[in-house]
Amino acid sequence: MENIRIPRIMRETSKRHLHNGRTIGFVPTMGALHEGHISLIKRAKSENDIVVVSIFVNPTQFGPNEDFDKYPRDLERDMEKLRKEEVHILFMPDVGAMYPEGFSSYITVRGLSDKLCGVFRSGHFTGVATIVCKLFNIVKPTAAYFGQKDFQQAVIIKRMIEDLNMDVNLIICPTVRENDGLAMSSRNVYLSKEERIAATVIFRTLLSASQAIKSGITNPVDVSKHMHDMLMAEPLISEIQYAGVYDVNTFDELNEFKKQNLIAVAVKIGSTRLIDNIIVEF
Amino acid sequence: MENIRIPRIMRETSKRHLHNGRTIGFVPTMGALHEGHISLIKRAKSENDIVVVSIFVNPTQFGPNEDFDKYPRDLERDMEKLRKEEVHILFMPDVGAMYPEGFSSYITVRGLSDKLCGVFRSGHFTGVATIVCKLFNIVKPTAAYFGQKDFQQAVIIKRMIEDLNMDVNLIICPTVRENDGLAMSSRNVYLSKEERIAATVIFRTLLSASQAIKSGITNPVDVSKHMHDMLMAEPLISEIQYAGVYDVNTFDELNEFKKQNLIAVAVKIGSTRLIDNIIVEF
Repeated sequence: MENIRIPRIMRETSKRHLHNGRTIGFVPTMGALHEGHISLIKRAKSENDIVVVSIFVNPTQFGPNEDFDKYPRDLERDMEKLRKEEVHILFMPDVGAMYPEGFSSYITVRGLSDKLCGVFRSGHFTGVATIVCKLFNIVKPTAAYFGQKDFQQAVIIKRMIEDLNMDVNLIICPTVRENDGLAMSSRNVYLSKEERIAATVIFRTLLSASQAIKSGITNPVDVSKHMHDMLMAEPLISEIQYAGVYDVNTFDELNEFKKQNLIAVAVKIGSTRLIDNIIVEF
Repeated sequence: MENIRIPRIMRETSKRHLHNGRTIGFVPTMGALHEGHISLIKRAKSENDIVVVSIFVNPTQFGPNEDFDKYPRDLERDMEKLRKEEVHILFMPDVGAMYPEGFSSYITVRGLSDKLCGVFRSGHFTGVATIVCKLFNIVKPTAAYFGQKDFQQAVIIKRMIEDLNMDVNLIICPTVRENDGLAMSSRNVYLSKEERIAATVIFRTLLSASQAIKSGITNPVDVSKHMHDMLMAEPLISEIQYAGVYDVNTFDELNEFKKQNLIAVAVKIGSTRLIDNIIVEF
């Protein structure tokens, strides 16, 4: 596995591969790799000649009171996992190389960035869109792989790719779950043993909402109420940021079901913020 | 001259040329071509295998009370000039192809965009940065050519290229002037005969400021005052938006001279807004 830290060298390496007719699959990560990331890497490997994984804990997507400082970092284990998957290139730039003094250009996907998680994480999606644009311009991927767990992020990046005429194929892959249904997330390590058990309520709530819809509830507002009731019954949930049925394209709360319906939840368990979603189709 | 209207076809065409080892020089314009544009095209031709000129009057860089609707358009004459210069490709997309329904991604270069012209044209440089990013991603130029007359625009684009790791070489070319010194601009056609004569005060003011500096004025504030006095003496000037000595990198007004000093003016003559600048070096 080639280990590249300098953006310029990463770009030259990618250009050489592209010039030789190779496709590049790209999996951008913030490290602390779990089975969700590995599933993206396997998919990228199966569809491309070269696979590039980036590890970069991006400061501009964290709010001032968020967990940038304590975000889990375990480079040794990450590199072991990447070598096992036979990833070709690990791109791991320094913060100073990505955001040198005087940095001042930001991409905002208006509207979509202010809904759902955007309400609670001001500026988060501007940070995400900006770093992803930078990484795309450096890595020059043929295809980039994102997990459905961060569905809003994936939709915003898809919008950015289309709006700014970027030449990347975005692929959204299924959420990978623990045996009890909890969505894989680097932040799960924050949970105490009790919180980890309580966290299963999130996916149970999504499943229950899905079953309620399929068994004939006709009003999304009733589903949302049912979800809130289930989540509130779990005493370790300290905050419900949102829980309900949303438009998969606009993230607006639905008043009536559509062909595709985004069932999504964001809660805090103790001080750990967790999100999850499923899409229910008719 | 190949005439391309569809972004996807433009991009495929550029990719083919790049794949064959050709360099692409790009001159983005809003049409109404004048000698300033032609100088950029000649420079691009001299330095690249393929020259692409775009003509696109970009709605997102005009304010609601600005001249988008009456901006001069003369496609027949423009195409004649481009053919004469043996431009290889004219890229001329429709507004609907560049900003389809649901478009919502914008690039802002913070700080720089709020100075000088940005004070008077809210949102202008976000529109400029966004369209230039889109055009770069479609045309995939090796080098792009901009005129020094729009110095703030060129610096903002340079900043965006660096910040977002774009793979484009930005080249700023000297301002081309009429015989009496007025900077070439598509908006000069708005001027009445009297206004056209009055407009020469802009370049005379820049030259006079330059001479004042070189002859030993030690305080930029005195230069600014001298410039305002000269401009105010011209009765057809209806508004001085800014006139003074600025930092070439930050656009902040200078309190003492530096190695490079941006002498810049924005005024309205009647209802026509004109800008110009020179750089004075020590």
